Amino acid sequence: MIRFLTAGESHGPELTGIIEGVPAGFTITKDFIDSYLQRRQKDTGSGGRMNIESDEVFISSGVVNNISTGAPIALRIKNKDWENWKDKDIEPYVVPRPGHADLIGTAKYDLNDIRLVLERSSARETAMRSAIGAIAMQILEAMDISIYGYVSSIGKVEYRYSSDFPLAQMRKLTDDSPVSCPDGDKSKQMEKEILEARKKKDTLGGSITTIATGVPPTLGSYVHWDKKLDAKLARILMSIQSVKAVEVGDGIESSKNYGTSVQDQYVLDEKEIKKESNNLGGFEGGMTNGENIELTAYLKPISTTLTPIKSVNLAKKKETETVYERSDTCAVPRAVPIFESAMALEILNAVLTKTGGDNKKEIIKNFENIPNLNIDEFDLDNKVWKFGYESE
Amino acid sequence: MIRFLTAGESHGPELTGIIEGVPAGFTITKDFIDSYLQRRQKDTGSGGRMNIESDEVFISSGVVNNISTGAPIALRIKNKDWENWKDKDIEPYVVPRPGHADLIGTAKYDLNDIRLVLERSSARETAMRSAIGAIAMQILEAMDISIYGYVSSIGKVEYRYSSDFPLAQMRKLTDDSPVSCPDGDKSKQMEKEILEARKKKDTLGGSITTIATGVPPTLGSYVHWDKKLDAKLARILMSIQSVKAVEVGDGIESSKNYGTSVQDQYVLDEKEIKKESNNLGGFEGGMTNGENIELTAYLKPISTTLTPIKSVNLAKKKETETVYERSDTCAVPRAVPIFESAMALEILNAVLTKTGGDNKKEIIKNFENIPNLNIDEFDLDNKVWKFGYESE
Amino acid sequence: MIRFLTAGESHGPELTGIIEGVPAGFTITKDFIDSYLQRRQKDTGSGGRMNIESDEVFISSGVVNNISTGAPIALRIKNKDWENWKDKDIEPYVVPRPGHADLIGTAKYDLNDIRLVLERSSARETAMRSAIGAIAMQILEAMDISIYGYVSSIGKVEYRYSSDFPLAQMRKLTDDSPVSCPDGDKSKQMEKEILEARKKKDTLGGSITTIATGVPPTLGSYVHWDKKLDAKLARILMSIQSVKAVEVGDGIESSKNYGTSVQDQYVLDEKEIKKESNNLGGFEGGMTNGENIELTAYLKPISTTLTPIKSVNLAKKKETETVYERSDTCAVPRAVPIFESAMALEILNAVLTKTGGDNKKEIIKNFENIPNLNIDEFDLDNKVWKFGYESE
Amino acid sequence: MIRFLTAGESHGPELTGIIEGVPAGFTITKDFIDSYLQRRQKDTGSGGRMNIESDEVFISSGVVNNISTGAPIALRIKNKDWENWKDKDIEPYVVPRPGHADLIGTAKYDLNDIRLVLERSSARETAMRSAIGAIAMQILEAMDISIYGYVSSIGKVEYRYSSDFPLAQMRKLTDDSPVSCPDGDKSKQMEKEILEARKKKDTLGGSITTIATGVPPTLGSYVHWDKKLDAKLARILMSIQSVKAVEVGDGIESSKNYGTSVQDQYVLDEKEIKKESNNLGGFEGGMTNGENIELTAYLKPISTTLTPIKSVNLAKKKETETVYERSDTCAVPRAVPIFESAMALEILNAVLTKTGGDNKKEIIKNFENIPNLNIDEFDLDNKVWKFGYESE
Repeated sequence: MIRFLTAGESHGPELTGIIEGVPAGFTITKDFIDSYLQRRQKDTGSGGRMNIESDEVFISSGVVNNISTGAPIALRIKNKDWENWKDKDIEPYVVPRPGHADLIGTAKYDLNDIRLVLERSSARETAMRSAIGAIAMQILEAMDISIYGYVSSIGKVEYRYSSDFPLAQMRKLTDDSPVSCPDGDKSKQMEKEILEARKKKDTLGGSITTIATGVPPTLGSYVHWDKKLDAKLARILMSIQSVKAVEVGDGIESSKNYGTSVQDQYVLDEKEIKKESNNLGGFEGGMTNGENIELTAYLKPISTTLTPIKSVNLAKKKETETVYERSDTCAVPRAVPIFESAMALEILNAVLTKTGGDNKKEIIKNFENIPNLNIDEFDLDNKVWKFGYESE
Repeated sequence: MIRFLTAGESHGPELTGIIEGVPAGFTITKDFIDSYLQRRQKDTGSGGRMNIESDEVFISSGVVNNISTGAPIALRIKNKDWENWKDKDIEPYVVPRPGHADLIGTAKYDLNDIRLVLERSSARETAMRSAIGAIAMQILEAMDISIYGYVSSIGKVEYRYSSDFPLAQMRKLTDDSPVSCPDGDKSKQMEKEILEARKKKDTLGGSITTIATGVPPTLGSYVHWDKKLDAKLARILMSIQSVKAVEVGDGIESSKNYGTSVQDQYVLDEKEIKKESNNLGGFEGGMTNGENIELTAYLKPISTTLTPIKSVNLAKKKETETVYERSDTCAVPRAVPIFESAMALEILNAVLTKTGGDNKKEIIKNFENIPNLNIDEFDLDNKVWKFGYESE
Repeated sequence: MIRFLTAGESHGPELTGIIEGVPAGFTITKDFIDSYLQRRQKDTGSGGRMNIESDEVFISSGVVNNISTGAPIALRIKNKDWENWKDKDIEPYVVPRPGHADLIGTAKYDLNDIRLVLERSSARETAMRSAIGAIAMQILEAMDISIYGYVSSIGKVEYRYSSDFPLAQMRKLTDDSPVSCPDGDKSKQMEKEILEARKKKDTLGGSITTIATGVPPTLGSYVHWDKKLDAKLARILMSIQSVKAVEVGDGIESSKNYGTSVQDQYVLDEKEIKKESNNLGGFEGGMTNGENIELTAYLKPISTTLTPIKSVNLAKKKETETVYERSDTCAVPRAVPIFESAMALEILNAVLTKTGGDNKKEIIKNFENIPNLNIDEFDLDNKVWKFGYESE
Repeated sequence: MIRFLTAGESHGPELTGIIEGVPAGFTITKDFIDSYLQRRQKDTGSGGRMNIESDEVFISSGVVNNISTGAPIALRIKNKDWENWKDKDIEPYVVPRPGHADLIGTAKYDLNDIRLVLERSSARETAMRSAIGAIAMQILEAMDISIYGYVSSIGKVEYRYSSDFPLAQMRKLTDDSPVSCPDGDKSKQMEKEILEARKKKDTLGGSITTIATGVPPTLGSYVHWDKKLDAKLARILMSIQSVKAVEVGDGIESSKNYGTSVQDQYVLDEKEIKKESNNLGGFEGGMTNGENIELTAYLKPISTTLTPIKSVNLAKKKETETVYERSDTCAVPRAVPIFESAMALEILNAVLTKTGGDNKKEIIKNFENIPNLNIDEFDLDNKVWKFGYESE
């Protein structure tokens, strides 16, 4: 079982993360993690803040000579702005931004400056989550599990990949797109959508679809509600800033259609039981079913809009309007690696729960013992029997 | 902290549940729980199976003279069919139903009869979850927190309540509607939609919106990803059978609109900070913000369709089609109390985490100490300061 | 991961337990569980109450035809006395017994009758814990792991088994001894000790040593404090009623002796790395080391003494003395199976964390992949190297 | 709920810790934490290694201007030796030390150098645990809860404080004693004991008693085994390196004595229900009872002895002897703050579970609502009644 904690404020000295439960013997490199941090810094839709954030990670434990030792791994990411901030006079922040944690966080923690909330609630925190997820990703890749995210909508422009899409090229195509959408045409429309919003001094949301390939069947379980892996994935995606809805497969569309068209029917491909479609996004009964895992998260627009909206001044105790000089227009394009990381962490946990084990050698051997869907592996005896419970 | 386990198969002798962490001194009655179980047995959309299930609960511990004692509460619900089943010859089940846990569950647990999967993965289990949730509900009501669910769509027919809807009548209106929708016209359209699906020997899904009123602000937190209450709610709703998407407030619509129209702007109502709208469904920064909590869950159609679909015979090792003589058309109308129960459990947990305490007297006192949004309660000193971290 | 909840009062209708996380395919029988419950009802040291308790378990889910299905297992044990109690006029209990949960429990849960505390805090609850532990035991036995407990002291009479003791006979010898001590002479002295205490209208404690054999090395871990298996065992044993100290191996004696005599030195037995002694009770660095696990729990005397001691009357608000007509003298002899059960649960959890897996076939295969201490399995390359952390 | 993770190797660049769940508004200073780290560096019994370790902490988040903000707190402690190690040629470590994690850790994580185990299993890790515990301590002190540890034995020399000991002076007396024992005479005998062991090129263990004062009653619970606070404390103390036994109050002595002499009898002190003695170490039924909490942990001698003992060479695959040039003789005197820290963390968790709340103002108010033992606060109505369970 993987567990992790993150810490750090946006303008504090650094972000810190510890991930515990990482098995020994896996290759974990700073370069791989840094590449994730860089993907998080795409600047389409940003108001130019990104260049202050060319992040890199410092690994201070748990990995020696690029191999995990089994010990907890500690990570640090410096906040480059800290040098400027530490001696700065801080203007107190007294007007909470609707849609943010500002107002409620100030009340909850009885703080005397809203800044203490936004320093932690900011999406800056996701840099560390991405770094930690990038560790999970490297372990998954050793088991041939890959995770790809892409932007599936910006405002009203939507795109969904089809089953014949070459997933191996997904990463490159999204990286090359300024809006992280693998389709060229849609990509341009999305850019236009963002531009229009910027002109209106407004902001836009959208959605991100995240796909995992190579995940074995039988992860998660139906036997108790809190073992359903799709539900755990829903939680971790919903926990990402701005996310207001999470969908497994074509969940929303499925709720409108007839059963016969929604269920993914079974066929035999040689001895392997396959599905003809993947409307259910890789899950049946809360368990992985061998198909690609697909979840879509829907993000609301950034709350901080250049166009003023109504709020209150907590110091002067009266109504006011928000005023900003700078704001991003759309955070969706650069959020993709955050979703991939979140999915990686949850799937790695499910895999390690299934394999047990503490080192790569043991885990790879156990991984091969995971049940597969070869029809010959099923051992149903087809005899009439009686339900047996121990009588009262 | 509330925790609970449920056990029991559909055709076993009984369902069992234990809920631990229930504080002492609260009124818990069998009648209230039974009323929840009965609401789960509405028969619109069913194939007539419901009458075998007029459930009632037996409380065997933790409640004496209708008052909780602080000890774990054990519940039992008899499966009335058990008497018929226990001496019955059981035909082995060898053709897994696409969309169900059947195939993957059989592989995962290396079972020799699919029936052992469906006995547990069946929605029958939600009877016990509803019973346990009905305990949570009674404690919440002692704090003036209420939870209402309603059907917000069946197939393509949609309905969303508006902010001027009289919530106090929601329960009665949904109970009176054969499809659990509080709007008369939409209710009829939904019934028609179900009828049509039945004629086509097909099945339908839909969506259920669940609302909590009276929840104090500041539950949940932004400080760590796994403290976000909206994400926990997403998980528990997603864990309910057939749910494939969960939305907070108007999350999906919000992902398509401009920021200025999505954020719920702040106004002062006397001293109270209020929101002009509730697009965000009662959450900011993963915390309750004093508005109604609103989540919508989207359910796929029932997997068991009278129209055959493709599957495989695991005993004979070959392709086949599913064949059923009886199936429900739509499970959505009777699922409402399950969603209310799930929400109740998660909200009660958040409330008790906030109040601490072990008995009603203590908890009610601590409940009054929860921060509110009276602007005079905020204590921002508005002074310029410096970021203080302990120097390296 | 195994988890379980228990519920039920001493004089309520029944005890209930649910154990979740039990893998599929293992043999679980009512007879085996009942045999554990009977061992808990030995009557030496009791005041004759035991005969009201000839317990048996009812299994209502998760086990079909004596094989676990992977679903949660629910258990019930009837309280035979309930029939007499349910219509009885209950005298309120107003004088808390020093040493019991009575006083503090009444304050904590703000109860109006101490009886509501003692109904749950009573060791009656351990009947269900034993039953649940007996399920764990059956799974462990399928992996050739056995657990034996014995009484290692009553009052001042002490006995510790030596390394040449035939463990295979431990169960029979302790079952045959009226005080559950496998040594005939010591057994008699212990009986005498109890008799003397009874004459003095007083009570006695003692200690129980619990041993696990066949446990593979490498369970638990040093990498984080909460992964140490010896510490988890200490907790679960300390949680048993009356336990006030827990010792791993010869821990207390070891704290007084020189290091050279305490450490268990390593020798090669063919290729196998063995220890010359087992002072450390089977643990190094919080991990199992392949030797027998040995823990000793020390129990205080029963708090309820026929000789009155000082207390207060909570109704009359004044000092008083305790008055009882009946009390057991020593609970230690019949407590042995409770300790075995507790150890079984914690060890099974550690084993399943190590093997992962959901069904017997998979688990047994993974079990064989657990590292062993054959010296040829170690792969140390013996090269000079440099500490590699990713530079700042 | 407090949770924390620690990371870092003995000779890596630094130790890292994150503590999450710290409420806002409490004073947390670097100076206080550093004072704990310094108490951990007492050099009696050491082989002179301590001077390389004059530790100090760097706080990088969650505390601004010495006040907690509610966000996770990240800590770092530099390993001063790292500068020397990072470019050093590392000799592989191939002979595991009996009594340490070396052998089993190498097998478990399939490592090619034992050093990778000892770098993490070393007691160096307790520096970070102490730092984290020092944060807990500062919050407890705001509620007038204090924690004191002292050495209660070294080898065969024992000392237990008596009930009339002036606890307010405990900290100073133990700090002044070279062996952390508050009694002058015993202190000298203990020093002599250590000296003798050193002459023999051997090592010694001992015991540490840790006391908490000011803890309110009703923390922990009897209602479920895993809510017993004494058992949780047993676990966290047992998790500290070298600990092989944990005792609550006079637990071991109590197991040998009669019940009438063991139970702490109740008397009224004005309206307050007090105990005449504290043999039970502050616990009844797993709950705090308002008396001082007292636990004693027994430590085995340091495993690394200058006198060689038998082991195996894992590279050469043959028997050998351990050889060291330097070793500490006794770690007990400087371990005291580690035990205080561990107890502080567990007690703070129990307090915050009881009070709930997120900020100091709210928590202090809720703290006052914790039940006390004033006899007038009990509300027992003393009426005859009937056991009420909901009939089947």
